[in-house]
Amino acid sequence: MMKKPAPMPVIFDTDPGIDDAMALYLLAHHPALELRAITTVFGNAGVDVTSRNGQLLAALFDQQVPVAKGAAGPLHVDAEREFSVHVHGDDGLGGMAAMIDAEVPALDARPASQLICDMVNAEPGAITLIAVGPLTNLALALRHDPGIAAKVHRVIVMGGAFGTQARCGNVTPVAEANIINDPEAADLVFSADWPVVIVGLDVTHETVMTESYLSNLQGRGAGVGVCVGDFLWQATRHYQDFYQSVDGINGVYAHDASAIVYAIEPAAFTLRAGPVRVVTEGIARGQTIQDFRKPSGAVTPWSGCPAQQVCIAVRPERVLAIFDQAFDAS
Amino acid sequence: MMKKPAPMPVIFDTDPGIDDAMALYLLAHHPALELRAITTVFGNAGVDVTSRNGQLLAALFDQQVPVAKGAAGPLHVDAEREFSVHVHGDDGLGGMAAMIDAEVPALDARPASQLICDMVNAEPGAITLIAVGPLTNLALALRHDPGIAAKVHRVIVMGGAFGTQARCGNVTPVAEANIINDPEAADLVFSADWPVVIVGLDVTHETVMTESYLSNLQGRGAGVGVCVGDFLWQATRHYQDFYQSVDGINGVYAHDASAIVYAIEPAAFTLRAGPVRVVTEGIARGQTIQDFRKPSGAVTPWSGCPAQQVCIAVRPERVLAIFDQAFDAS
Repeated sequence: MMKKPAPMPVIFDTDPGIDDAMALYLLAHHPALELRAITTVFGNAGVDVTSRNGQLLAALFDQQVPVAKGAAGPLHVDAEREFSVHVHGDDGLGGMAAMIDAEVPALDARPASQLICDMVNAEPGAITLIAVGPLTNLALALRHDPGIAAKVHRVIVMGGAFGTQARCGNVTPVAEANIINDPEAADLVFSADWPVVIVGLDVTHETVMTESYLSNLQGRGAGVGVCVGDFLWQATRHYQDFYQSVDGINGVYAHDASAIVYAIEPAAFTLRAGPVRVVTEGIARGQTIQDFRKPSGAVTPWSGCPAQQVCIAVRPERVLAIFDQAFDAS
Repeated sequence: MMKKPAPMPVIFDTDPGIDDAMALYLLAHHPALELRAITTVFGNAGVDVTSRNGQLLAALFDQQVPVAKGAAGPLHVDAEREFSVHVHGDDGLGGMAAMIDAEVPALDARPASQLICDMVNAEPGAITLIAVGPLTNLALALRHDPGIAAKVHRVIVMGGAFGTQARCGNVTPVAEANIINDPEAADLVFSADWPVVIVGLDVTHETVMTESYLSNLQGRGAGVGVCVGDFLWQATRHYQDFYQSVDGINGVYAHDASAIVYAIEPAAFTLRAGPVRVVTEGIARGQTIQDFRKPSGAVTPWSGCPAQQVCIAVRPERVLAIFDQAFDAS
């Protein structure tokens, strides 16, 4: 009999966020993964809201792990931010935060970046970071202790848009929301010498959880005090209306959940290798650009940056099946 | 019997350049087009070299039209330029300039931008501008007399890269040579209120003139003092080696000739509509970005710019056939 591999220990860096909640549920319940900590960041809402949501979701999903609050804004603050309340609602969870009445854990005393450094240093080579919000916490952790780059097992990022499916950004024609929320942090994270896999709009826009798919989650998935499938169905009602009005799809994109599925079943994705930089100036601010051309010897802004992996294709049916199966697990 | 439509009068703005020479031959010989003037610009070589080549090619192709010298550098000069002598050779024509011994016409006394304004104003609504080099002359013409925008029939530009075929730039991962040679000029030309069709790498990289295709031009195409097919075969020997080493293709891309084919047979191309801006700062400098998303009401750098047309697909066999047929015309 084959020995089952040990689950992969994960720190989940997140700005919940409705699709963050979906991703966290999958991460918490899939046997291949082991959630070690939740670190929060501004993004889908302010960091006080996303941190509270991180605590609420840890409680709802019965996860006894530290929840550490992270950055309230980008590395370089130069403009008043506007949060996506039209997407995720005022509470970041489509109006459902108040429905969670599980006992909520206290926040960890450490800032998110410190918790990341501590956990990575405690188990060199073991920890996978999965980041599904702006990359500010990861950038702060790298700045605080550059030595962690060599000790992280892998970094999986939901963010960016590389135009491989003739798709575009979701904030500007070229910029995706997580990256444009802190382009300087993203550039630092992608340029660092650690192995990064980027799960961007090129693939997340390929996987739509339709209304009937979401409806079928109802009555399934045990949560503390509430059925998780019912919770997600309710939380996605307004979120789905947003996508209906913007892209005409009758459902929601599996943005953050796709990053978790990559961790579980990388073979569901096609990767492309090459250094990745982020545009920090001008009309393309927030754009992610991979140099996947044959090296020519010319010195460019990509020279000397490590090759990272960008997801350029996905088998959507695998994303949908793996997420759905998490609602049948005990 | 159908009346044959009058040929389309064209000013050809060019930086010859080997593929410029191929494009000019097609433009000069196709019955649907009528070459009215050649305006030159820096690019594949310095403007003294490209102007001399414009004169030589006018003579070789037996074209009695004005040749006017244009810009020696971009609108905003901020760096020493390096010309693509490794691509087009020191003389811009793969070493073949000295082979042309036809009688060379004098240069027009006017700068290129003045000639463009004069010709457009003389026949409002008639002139098509086909630009296959940096867009400096067109930008200078617009600055000199903004009224020409309403009087040009159409602007056809070879330049840019929009990533629709998961292709990239040919100078940086996102920038094409003509555009990065003067991003400010290109941004002005694409933002102006005149109808622009952009024939970029998305389509020109789809059409390869193979070694056997080029070889088959030999002995065909009457020129003054030399067979044009023989001339182009010789001129493309080094140019083809360059593409072989860079992209591994056994031939050359039909960059500039594709813009001429668009003028002759637009149905060979698929267009996408939306405002186009050019990145002028940072690592994405020279990138062309079209906003083809459904208008959301959000104010962006693309708001208020006219919708232009970008070629996103091509029938390569039409480009190859139309170019080849020009060598059978009398």
